[in-house]
Amino acid sequence: MNSCDELVELILDEMKKRGLAGSDGKIPVGVSNRHIHLSAEDKETLFGAGYQLTPIKDLTQPGQFACKEYILVAGSKGSIEKVRILGPERKETQVEILAGDCFKLGINAPLRDSGKLEDSPGVTLIGPKGSVILKRGVIIAKRHIHMTLGDANRLGVRDGESVTVSVSGIRGGSLSEVLIRAQENARLDFHLDTEEANALGVTGDSLVTIVK
Amino acid sequence: MNSCDELVELILDEMKKRGLAGSDGKIPVGVSNRHIHLSAEDKETLFGAGYQLTPIKDLTQPGQFACKEYILVAGSKGSIEKVRILGPERKETQVEILAGDCFKLGINAPLRDSGKLEDSPGVTLIGPKGSVILKRGVIIAKRHIHMTLGDANRLGVRDGESVTVSVSGIRGGSLSEVLIRAQENARLDFHLDTEEANALGVTGDSLVTIVK
Repeated sequence: MNSCDELVELILDEMKKRGLAGSDGKIPVGVSNRHIHLSAEDKETLFGAGYQLTPIKDLTQPGQFACKEYILVAGSKGSIEKVRILGPERKETQVEILAGDCFKLGINAPLRDSGKLEDSPGVTLIGPKGSVILKRGVIIAKRHIHMTLGDANRLGVRDGESVTVSVSGIRGGSLSEVLIRAQENARLDFHLDTEEANALGVTGDSLVTIVK
Repeated sequence: MNSCDELVELILDEMKKRGLAGSDGKIPVGVSNRHIHLSAEDKETLFGAGYQLTPIKDLTQPGQFACKEYILVAGSKGSIEKVRILGPERKETQVEILAGDCFKLGINAPLRDSGKLEDSPGVTLIGPKGSVILKRGVIIAKRHIHMTLGDANRLGVRDGESVTVSVSGIRGGSLSEVLIRAQENARLDFHLDTEEANALGVTGDSLVTIVK
């Protein structure tokens, strides 16, 4: 990365932190690779009793962070190494994979909003101190936009609504079925996964707009 | 795959072969994973003097086929195993990767139309009988629609034009910058890569429409 890219990234990060982005209708972007949210119980099984996860990077949403730790995710057809843990712990373990990972793992994961794990398939998690055979919790995350209620009001959308997001550039287009997640403690950010970002030529430096 | 899926696939394959699809403006879809087109010279270096590629499946476009053979593609940061060879041979070797592969290989491949290899990066190809250090030829293929001149006339587009394609479904949206490739000997088919297909929830059974 050259110094200009670094500067753009620093400025965008700072704008997101201060909630300054989006005043012109442009929405910053966060690209997620496959990752895992662990329950406290599964964390202890995988890493040992009393283990504390090690935050290495704050994410855009307040209180969320990427951890130093990663684990192996294994299915009946294959496994994926070094899947990153995101913190803090959640009530129930949730594994967010890419659509392309379904084939590798031999799993048919549904497209779901975060936390909606009913009838989702399980998978085996393998950590340095133990393994967990998950009964459910593997999903492909539905793309969504985090925002405050004030952002929602300003952008003319409401919590739970589905909108279409427009992307410019040499691989541009639009993504429909984007869920609005508006709550008091949030920062404006369009979350999509690496396959969606690559398909539309989007990076963490991109800005998108809502076209309803 | 269950018998219903198999039946749909058989019918769609047959429709594509007979050129029956598309009469209602619906366009069939072909999803490409990363793959390689080899020159005759590179084929002999990788597989041995006089070696003939082994066709295992006809592709939609007349004369094109997938081969039994695959090779290892290696960059400065990592390698990808079992990258499929497509036939027949071409004048110059062309390696079509996914945007997500750039990071794995440590290569910054440009988004290009097939055959436009000027200033594209190289990569190392490793076959059972030898290796090739390519000087150039690695691209991310630009999404495109193959069609006959008759199809183009009927659909109101012309060779070389860029159009937008609309996709329905729970991950639907639209993909802009889709190149029209109209020629006499072609079969109507929208070609995109696995990341693009996964992002939009598209499979080889999908039908899309052109929205200019």
